[in-house]
Amino acid sequence: MTPDEFRRAGYELIDLIADYLDGGVAERPVMTDLAPGDVRALLPEHPPTEPESWAAVRADVDRVVLPTITHWQHPNWFAYFPANTTYSSILGELLSAGLGVQGMSWVTSPACTEIETLMLDWMLELLGLPDRFRSTSEHGGGVIQGSASEAVLVAILAARWKATAGVVNRLGDTSRLVAYTTSQAHSSIEKGLRIAGIGTDRVRVIEHDERFAMRPEALAHAIEADIEGGLIPFFVCTTHGTTSSMAFDPTAVVAEVCERAGAWLHVDGAMSGIAALAPELRWVNDGIERAGSYCTNPHKWMGINFDCSLFWTADRAALLGALSILPEYLRSAAAESGAAIDYRDWQVPLGRRFRALKLWFNLRLDGVGAAQERVRRDVALAQEFASWVAADDRFEIVAPHPLNLVCIRLAGDDDAPTEALIERINTAGEFHVTRTVLDGRTALRVSIGARTTERANVEALWAVLRA
Amino acid sequence: MTPDEFRRAGYELIDLIADYLDGGVAERPVMTDLAPGDVRALLPEHPPTEPESWAAVRADVDRVVLPTITHWQHPNWFAYFPANTTYSSILGELLSAGLGVQGMSWVTSPACTEIETLMLDWMLELLGLPDRFRSTSEHGGGVIQGSASEAVLVAILAARWKATAGVVNRLGDTSRLVAYTTSQAHSSIEKGLRIAGIGTDRVRVIEHDERFAMRPEALAHAIEADIEGGLIPFFVCTTHGTTSSMAFDPTAVVAEVCERAGAWLHVDGAMSGIAALAPELRWVNDGIERAGSYCTNPHKWMGINFDCSLFWTADRAALLGALSILPEYLRSAAAESGAAIDYRDWQVPLGRRFRALKLWFNLRLDGVGAAQERVRRDVALAQEFASWVAADDRFEIVAPHPLNLVCIRLAGDDDAPTEALIERINTAGEFHVTRTVLDGRTALRVSIGARTTERANVEALWAVLRA
Repeated sequence: MTPDEFRRAGYELIDLIADYLDGGVAERPVMTDLAPGDVRALLPEHPPTEPESWAAVRADVDRVVLPTITHWQHPNWFAYFPANTTYSSILGELLSAGLGVQGMSWVTSPACTEIETLMLDWMLELLGLPDRFRSTSEHGGGVIQGSASEAVLVAILAARWKATAGVVNRLGDTSRLVAYTTSQAHSSIEKGLRIAGIGTDRVRVIEHDERFAMRPEALAHAIEADIEGGLIPFFVCTTHGTTSSMAFDPTAVVAEVCERAGAWLHVDGAMSGIAALAPELRWVNDGIERAGSYCTNPHKWMGINFDCSLFWTADRAALLGALSILPEYLRSAAAESGAAIDYRDWQVPLGRRFRALKLWFNLRLDGVGAAQERVRRDVALAQEFASWVAADDRFEIVAPHPLNLVCIRLAGDDDAPTEALIERINTAGEFHVTRTVLDGRTALRVSIGARTTERANVEALWAVLRA
Repeated sequence: MTPDEFRRAGYELIDLIADYLDGGVAERPVMTDLAPGDVRALLPEHPPTEPESWAAVRADVDRVVLPTITHWQHPNWFAYFPANTTYSSILGELLSAGLGVQGMSWVTSPACTEIETLMLDWMLELLGLPDRFRSTSEHGGGVIQGSASEAVLVAILAARWKATAGVVNRLGDTSRLVAYTTSQAHSSIEKGLRIAGIGTDRVRVIEHDERFAMRPEALAHAIEADIEGGLIPFFVCTTHGTTSSMAFDPTAVVAEVCERAGAWLHVDGAMSGIAALAPELRWVNDGIERAGSYCTNPHKWMGINFDCSLFWTADRAALLGALSILPEYLRSAAAESGAAIDYRDWQVPLGRRFRALKLWFNLRLDGVGAAQERVRRDVALAQEFASWVAADDRFEIVAPHPLNLVCIRLAGDDDAPTEALIERINTAGEFHVTRTVLDGRTALRVSIGARTTERANVEALWAVLRA
């Protein structure tokens, strides 16, 4: 592909994306009724032997790709989480791809590292997070991870290193380490613990209350019992906005329990932490000032395209202890001086893209006001939706709904009507919602925050739910 | 940012990238002489309170970003590995960002999963890899990982699961598991093992020969000794193209040792496996047909922008056993039928971008011929460079150079002249090379394969080296 061909195809692709996001997506079903294998059947089984034209590839984007993706940017998207994407962040991703730099170390691309560090400090300020996470603090700092799964994994590894005074790097012995969370925590917590060699026998599922929030007294009992049993409570994860119901664990109280036990406290605010952009919603940060680490995802609800998961720690030495390995071909004077950050030691992979560009572009081109406005609009719509549900006695609301997620079900003990309702909505393709189970009962999650969701979309969903 | 602003800024950014890659980058120093903190000092410490114009942001790309990145796409780039980026793959990344879909499960975007599976099968065919890795085989399959570090980590986790018959998920007990590799293996192997709870006391560094390749008889002895000691040899990693010197371990012989011991064999072809696109270089695959897993990186040497690391396994059940966790909110009929692939269970993170698009775009728009040509040109240039070095008795070549990497040093026992030479070249900024240490002696790596490196660039480097 020549530079001129790239320019022409690039302009067309920019137009295609603008057309798609600015209306095109809304005209499609959110999700089509495909069976596994249907997409592959549209494409040749073997690679082409000769180059094809841009026109041919572009035609296949229309013919093959657009009809067979699930449209996360659709205004009737009420599923999973808001993965709303802004134009500005798309441009940032494009520039990252176009420059083709590698940010594994400071020296492999200083701007990639330093703009990222600055973005973490900007976001700390915008979210009202504690100074102990700031890059200029004595012990803390932040980094962009690809996902909250990776963020919690590195938190677990830092905690594991700290609880064993680093000996785990040599002996790999995790046999006495115990972790604590609730059944409402994201699956990535169990996955991260499993990866780190903490089996389910060493993961205590702490009881939650009727609001699906951790009972700190149950945590305290479990930790005491484990200490008496000769085990080491090393890691506690609270969630600020659980995936199933957006429950908030009482981190401030949990933190006291953790401090007494010497356990690392990680706060997972992946889905809801962005709410703190609105000062009146800063209660979502309660207790974070006592955590060892925190994560929230601008690729959820802030308009940054995936992947962009912000991770802060108050103890970067533990993180570096857990993850640093320095072969000869990666040594540099900058790194050895201690003045530069080498983000490869803050994450699982070695290589890294220039992900800070999309955050930088978004904060400058759209401004934080746009993201605040979206958060406020989504919270207001969710509260309004909840009021409609509350007024209709065929439905019940099954969990607190402090922000933009409302979990509902058809009244009564039988799950079948709710299961059928979810199935019917998702099969019809006009709307997309997610099913979950809360304390053994099926619920329909309505997550509000897609790119262009307005009141009319929520009203239309409610009309279908009632019908 | 409005759709129209996006269109105008998008066209400009496409032009900026074309201008940069098509000449602009070559006019800059590969690397500038910055100190940590210099980039941040160019930017405001606090986020903007109001949106800024595209003109302002674009001006900062010129003022702040372009002068402070290390230019991996520079024709005088001889450092680390070839991270050559094609226009076609940049377009694929742009479309991925623009569609904003999530490929965590088949159901969350069928095209994202199915095109990825097809691309793995296409690449298997183009690289001449064994059928047991094909997605349509009985037990195998492939997936795009973000990096080879993640690929080897999931291989380790699959091996760990298999060696413990899955019990590790419950008990987390890794105390009897032992892994084997050489000192020449990439740092990600030790990092992955450490993450998985295999400490350095359980990692055997197997002796290498004068070609920096593993001695299989030394591996056999180490494995026997561990079995006699009541330990479980669970994981062996061979490298096809080590980072320091591009050594190839004798995988075919190692595989026999692994089979006898029941250990998982992972082959790391991250940096050099792409050579197999040229049929006459398919010897780089020797032995892979007996491995449990294999990885090679199209973001190294094939022109796909980072991140795109291909991972195949012959035992997907072990991978799924190691990584599957299924909460209620991720259940789907497609997944439960077994007919669909849910790639979240093939990797560490849950979320995933539509990375297959950049591979698909590249294979169609540029065709595999372009990548083959680059591989051949780079190998030829490296061999020619090596012949110049061999003919100059002030230098010595310190390792075999079967492909596109030549490791040299100034003759004699003293490292200081070579250290000084590397320092001088990198400080001058016209070229960029990487230092390494081979059997205790400093070496200068010349890795050939940047986007537009031609014979004249290699000649110019040689002129500077000789001067």
